[in-house]
Amino acid sequence: MPNIKQRLEELGIELRPVSPPAANYIGASRIGNVLFVSGHGPDLGGGKYLRGKVGHDLTIDEGVEAARQTAICILATMDATVGLDHVTRIVKVLGMVNTAPGFNNTPAIINGASDLFVQIWGEEAGKHARSAVGMAVLPFDIPVEIELVAEVD
Amino acid sequence: MPNIKQRLEELGIELRPVSPPAANYIGASRIGNVLFVSGHGPDLGGGKYLRGKVGHDLTIDEGVEAARQTAICILATMDATVGLDHVTRIVKVLGMVNTAPGFNNTPAIINGASDLFVQIWGEEAGKHARSAVGMAVLPFDIPVEIELVAEVD
Amino acid sequence: MPNIKQRLEELGIELRPVSPPAANYIGASRIGNVLFVSGHGPDLGGGKYLRGKVGHDLTIDEGVEAARQTAICILATMDATVGLDHVTRIVKVLGMVNTAPGFNNTPAIINGASDLFVQIWGEEAGKHARSAVGMAVLPFDIPVEIELVAEVD
Repeated sequence: MPNIKQRLEELGIELRPVSPPAANYIGASRIGNVLFVSGHGPDLGGGKYLRGKVGHDLTIDEGVEAARQTAICILATMDATVGLDHVTRIVKVLGMVNTAPGFNNTPAIINGASDLFVQIWGEEAGKHARSAVGMAVLPFDIPVEIELVAEVD
Repeated sequence: MPNIKQRLEELGIELRPVSPPAANYIGASRIGNVLFVSGHGPDLGGGKYLRGKVGHDLTIDEGVEAARQTAICILATMDATVGLDHVTRIVKVLGMVNTAPGFNNTPAIINGASDLFVQIWGEEAGKHARSAVGMAVLPFDIPVEIELVAEVD
Repeated sequence: MPNIKQRLEELGIELRPVSPPAANYIGASRIGNVLFVSGHGPDLGGGKYLRGKVGHDLTIDEGVEAARQTAICILATMDATVGLDHVTRIVKVLGMVNTAPGFNNTPAIINGASDLFVQIWGEEAGKHARSAVGMAVLPFDIPVEIELVAEVD
């Protein structure tokens, strides 16, 4: 198993403090060795979020980067909840994209998160089951929201 | 752990009989100590459902109330399936809002359900991981649909 | 417990080879006795997918058949991952329909999958918790996407 914190350093990723959830819920909830992580968006810190529809306000590249930033926010939440070194595998991802009419390459966007998880945990533990779909509306018009299930020890 | 049935009485909540699912599925399914609860809507009894889009047909307050009613329907299903006193924690909620164009405060709407779960189970066991998103379409134009994962003993 | 492979033969269902996922993920991921299966669409083989919106490009009957084909693709993935005879129960289904404006009978569409699971595993093990909802966009304009949670031994 990789040392996750060390892997983040190698990738030049720094975790920001976790923002409090926008409503009456928590960032993640553990049951047995399964961690359910709440839907996260691309939090820019200080209560600010990236906003807009992919395919209109954001290009594909910007959408991919939004998904990557969202994944980094999820890392921060998992670290604050159980400690990242206790996250042994990414099991299942639900990637939701705020899509402009005519844009349907949602898998490419969510790869921004999936690629990062594989870079960190490796092929074996980082590769996950997934759905990547387009939403009518995401909270406060964020471009990407991702929730996931992880294995913890 | 709170006595859930007693808590419902204190809150003045009465559970209606569970309506049969609208199609070929069941209201909840248990695996180990995890209960997966089907997507529920604001069932008014007798096969009738509240309908319409939040932000157009329903105000925010009406949407919040629809989410609360949906949560009460979920309580009834959990009670019929495993008995409410065996539900020890709300783990993960997926809240789906039937949104009118321009409305994106989906977290406020789903709080109608989340607040109730916290009132019943308390901060520790009631607060859950969550996503609250906007859907293009919900079955038969219901304004809110909620599915969840609970811990059972 | 039914012999699943034999049941498929009786139903005249042949599983096609599994297509590689469209992006950086895997078809299914196991944790303990729980199998999380990725979102699948109606794969026609050779990288081709059925496409279009239900209620506009596809009739209801065609949508139901698309959901059934999607379920067959899921069977193939589960067989390739853990072996179908190790899938002891269908626990939870999330059915997502690519809906045209004005169409909201998503439960009827997803029954195309749910009915098949019940035909194969029987009432006891085949009937599952479920949500069936309408999406703004599905990847590459597929009409139906289904993900699920199964119990495996």
